[in-house]
Amino acid sequence: MQRILRVNMTDRTATFEEVPEKYRERAGRWLTSSIVASEVPPTCHPLGPENKLVISAGLTSGTSSPTSARVSVGGKSPLTGTIKESNAGTGFAHMLARLRIKSIIIEGQPKGAGKYWTLKVDKGGASFLPADQFVGMKLSEAYEKLFNEHGGLSHTSIMGIGVAGEYRLGAAGICFNDIKGRATRYSGRGGMGAVMGSKGLKFVIIDDTDGPGVEIANKELFDQGRKKLTDALMSHAITKPKGALNSYGTAVLVNIINEVGGLPTRNFRSGRFEGATKVSGEALFANNKERTGKEVYNHACSPGCVIQCSNTVYRPDGSEHMSCLEYESDWAFGPNCGIDDLDTVAELVNRCNEYGLDTIEVGGALAVAMDGGLAEFGDGKRALEIVNEIGKGTPLGRIIGSGAVTTGRAFGVNRVPAVKGQNMPAYEPRAIKGIGMTYAIGTMGADHTSGYTIATEVLGVAGKADPLNSNKAEMARNFQYATAFIDSSGHCLFIAFAILDIPSGFEGMLEECNGILGTSWTADDVGRIGKEVIDMERKFNRAAGFTKADDRLPEFMTYEPLPPHNAVWDITDEELDSILS
Amino acid sequence: MQRILRVNMTDRTATFEEVPEKYRERAGRWLTSSIVASEVPPTCHPLGPENKLVISAGLTSGTSSPTSARVSVGGKSPLTGTIKESNAGTGFAHMLARLRIKSIIIEGQPKGAGKYWTLKVDKGGASFLPADQFVGMKLSEAYEKLFNEHGGLSHTSIMGIGVAGEYRLGAAGICFNDIKGRATRYSGRGGMGAVMGSKGLKFVIIDDTDGPGVEIANKELFDQGRKKLTDALMSHAITKPKGALNSYGTAVLVNIINEVGGLPTRNFRSGRFEGATKVSGEALFANNKERTGKEVYNHACSPGCVIQCSNTVYRPDGSEHMSCLEYESDWAFGPNCGIDDLDTVAELVNRCNEYGLDTIEVGGALAVAMDGGLAEFGDGKRALEIVNEIGKGTPLGRIIGSGAVTTGRAFGVNRVPAVKGQNMPAYEPRAIKGIGMTYAIGTMGADHTSGYTIATEVLGVAGKADPLNSNKAEMARNFQYATAFIDSSGHCLFIAFAILDIPSGFEGMLEECNGILGTSWTADDVGRIGKEVIDMERKFNRAAGFTKADDRLPEFMTYEPLPPHNAVWDITDEELDSILS
Repeated sequence: MQRILRVNMTDRTATFEEVPEKYRERAGRWLTSSIVASEVPPTCHPLGPENKLVISAGLTSGTSSPTSARVSVGGKSPLTGTIKESNAGTGFAHMLARLRIKSIIIEGQPKGAGKYWTLKVDKGGASFLPADQFVGMKLSEAYEKLFNEHGGLSHTSIMGIGVAGEYRLGAAGICFNDIKGRATRYSGRGGMGAVMGSKGLKFVIIDDTDGPGVEIANKELFDQGRKKLTDALMSHAITKPKGALNSYGTAVLVNIINEVGGLPTRNFRSGRFEGATKVSGEALFANNKERTGKEVYNHACSPGCVIQCSNTVYRPDGSEHMSCLEYESDWAFGPNCGIDDLDTVAELVNRCNEYGLDTIEVGGALAVAMDGGLAEFGDGKRALEIVNEIGKGTPLGRIIGSGAVTTGRAFGVNRVPAVKGQNMPAYEPRAIKGIGMTYAIGTMGADHTSGYTIATEVLGVAGKADPLNSNKAEMARNFQYATAFIDSSGHCLFIAFAILDIPSGFEGMLEECNGILGTSWTADDVGRIGKEVIDMERKFNRAAGFTKADDRLPEFMTYEPLPPHNAVWDITDEELDSILS
Repeated sequence: MQRILRVNMTDRTATFEEVPEKYRERAGRWLTSSIVASEVPPTCHPLGPENKLVISAGLTSGTSSPTSARVSVGGKSPLTGTIKESNAGTGFAHMLARLRIKSIIIEGQPKGAGKYWTLKVDKGGASFLPADQFVGMKLSEAYEKLFNEHGGLSHTSIMGIGVAGEYRLGAAGICFNDIKGRATRYSGRGGMGAVMGSKGLKFVIIDDTDGPGVEIANKELFDQGRKKLTDALMSHAITKPKGALNSYGTAVLVNIINEVGGLPTRNFRSGRFEGATKVSGEALFANNKERTGKEVYNHACSPGCVIQCSNTVYRPDGSEHMSCLEYESDWAFGPNCGIDDLDTVAELVNRCNEYGLDTIEVGGALAVAMDGGLAEFGDGKRALEIVNEIGKGTPLGRIIGSGAVTTGRAFGVNRVPAVKGQNMPAYEPRAIKGIGMTYAIGTMGADHTSGYTIATEVLGVAGKADPLNSNKAEMARNFQYATAFIDSSGHCLFIAFAILDIPSGFEGMLEECNGILGTSWTADDVGRIGKEVIDMERKFNRAAGFTKADDRLPEFMTYEPLPPHNAVWDITDEELDSILS
């Protein structure tokens, strides 16, 4: 029997509850958004006592399903004011599922700020430990101490916030450990780390020792699905061993997106960066080979992932510098800040990991500040100094750490590439129209992962569309719905490459879900459930005060042509409003 | 024949246009809001090229009507994102009217930032002068230089921005000179100084030499009205010579509002300040008497004002320190920051005047930052240092200068007493319910001047209502409409005290308007016109993305009881939505 763990931080109590029948099939984003929509007042202050932080593993998490270790974190976002779900790949998901904890709901907040606690969850229940000794500490150091105190990686996983969450900054993410215990996997976007900080919660440590494991209604069907999905992932060019992701990581996209003229450069002033190849996944692979003396393929972020796309950056002396340098992080501090030195970019990302920050938002804010005259584009040394300020909590650090919109306000900049308060990630909507639709209509601000049309527009997955073609309303809609389903399934979104191109992989995913739940979902149910999730999130946002006027890209994109295509954003309001109407 | 002066800052052209027939009766706020609603795209970026800055004198400005020198400045606010009108009392209004310029519309913006211009307007037309030499200069020094260069006070008036407008900060106001040429009269709220700065416009200098003067359709009726209104102003206890305002200035309210428990103290943590008497208007009057050796009554901010409420603060040695210390400014840095030293408060306000800042927003932001741990409440020395940072444009200065909401974000504070992005002024809505309704439903964020129910709730004007009584929807509505009319009439809102209590004063105001326009407006037209203005502004806001969810007070006021009455904000959403529905 699964249970919900309800944690009240006002008086530090933790109680288990039965799972309401209506939530039986729900997991991941479907469940976090359901609980937030049901329990959080849409107009509440995101950092006040009425907001909640909701944690749920995906449906297939905790099983032997491939690439299924996604954990969703939901709440009302202090960055955007919308509902938020941000998921990460981490063993934490498996362990939560294996303890049969359907969701952890963190609510209330201590009277008076400054005290922090660790929530320890295991088979026996939940308890609170003081965490004040970790305040201000780098996350790598904190996680090492915590693993030493609470047991090894095989049965323990950590969710936590860094100084950014303590400062309650809009770019504060929530950090989970990766497969080696590194503090590097993030529910990064939307400032959920600030929500956690506002509740006086520094860490959640989970220990699944003797956990009962996931109940599977039809083991045979599940195994059949698992095998089909695994086969698809192991054979698709993007997801297979030594394929694109396993070789170069997500940073393989740098050259690809640059080639199509959609790599936002110097705060979205251009779609092409002359230094792109120097910060590409291929360059990283070549550097690593030279520095370590061997070809280094990537590793899994979490147990059971067969895609294994997490890269590692090595120093010139062959020692490990950091892991992982994702495409969007690489882009945020590289092309978007005009910086073409890969080691500098890796160190900028590394410091975000240490402070508990969303790299996309911080890189975006830094680029806006550079546009406002704070530093020269391309000045990596100054960029490092500025990111250090976030760690120190200086006024400048608090501006940048509050995200791009706040930074635009502070520096009087109106070229702020944000939607609903969240900075756009690494794909230029003027050059790649479908992703612009995704940014505009997404329930959580500009977010590539809410409908990754890049798959079709650039990578040729599930067909091929001209990036500059504007007729993509249906594509944008379908990606929204399919993504909401995958975000609930426990799978990494990267399974989409394989399941959209290989029908048996898609069948496999459904058979896994049906095997676990005893349901008979078909492809139609994927669309139905996806739509249900999106509709629910949109309803929350409407009640929070969002309107069609918020489903828009920033005005400057409509009148500033983007090199090299010199395209502007020209999708009409009517077309945008039709997508999810 | 009146004309509209349209100024394009992209290519620095200025052309006169005929006034459309529909605008014939409109002036002041009625006209600025009409032009903004008609010409500015509601979803545009307030600091982008599509926003406009619209300047209009009131209907009676430029005539011999008493207290009629209000000039309205309109546009889309960078602080709130709403439509904005902010008016100031200054000879500028008279001169604009006497040149028969119905409105100046500033549009476009230079490519690239950093160059500034002065627009010189006189009988011959309009011209542009370089203003780069004034960048970074204190406004008192700049205005002195400008008056020396462009002629004396009798025929010249200046509108300008300080460094805050150059930095495009959300708290940047637009400064007009007072009756002695001091740079102290402000269209302060909503960041209109940032809009002016975004257009590369540093000053507008007006010279009405040989201006044709205001056309008056029925001079006899006008004179009859003028006399009735003057008599009312000269006899009401609040507005008469040596009455409350003429003796103590608006700061007379400190003790009064403190007494009713509605003086927001230490970032709205209490409604009563133990140091209130030390920063009261009475204390200022007593200090001045002691320091100058005589009773100092107040002076007019602008020619023709009979209320004469502008006070002057003198130093211990009897020399002039600054003018004027309004109640809201006094409160913002005094009780709201826990500072009880009048000279320190006066100097804080003085620095805002020098930098071109809205004192309410800056004091509000400072209090939020103090609440977030930046400084101790009551630390005047540190407060002065922090306000200095705004002048220097440091990161901390940019946070505070961006207003309370941005400051709350930077310092992770959720006790931010703002509505639609604008900090509340000096009246606590939990203790004085009607003003809370005004804050909630106002079209421009929390703003006491949009419906000054304090007149009835506290001062006993037009009846008397218990401040804590919640049944004030009709009062709030009527004040909104009447205010929108007065803001269009050219009169200072302070005529309301007299015209609401003395029927002949109200008649006089109408006769003046009818005398000028040749209309036959009655009291019904006051309501009709006021409603038309409010409806137009609300329509703009709806199109900009505002909803009922924005017509709310901040959540913390619903659950934090306010001493001494320990009242919470308990007006229902339904009641708020009924007020202007």
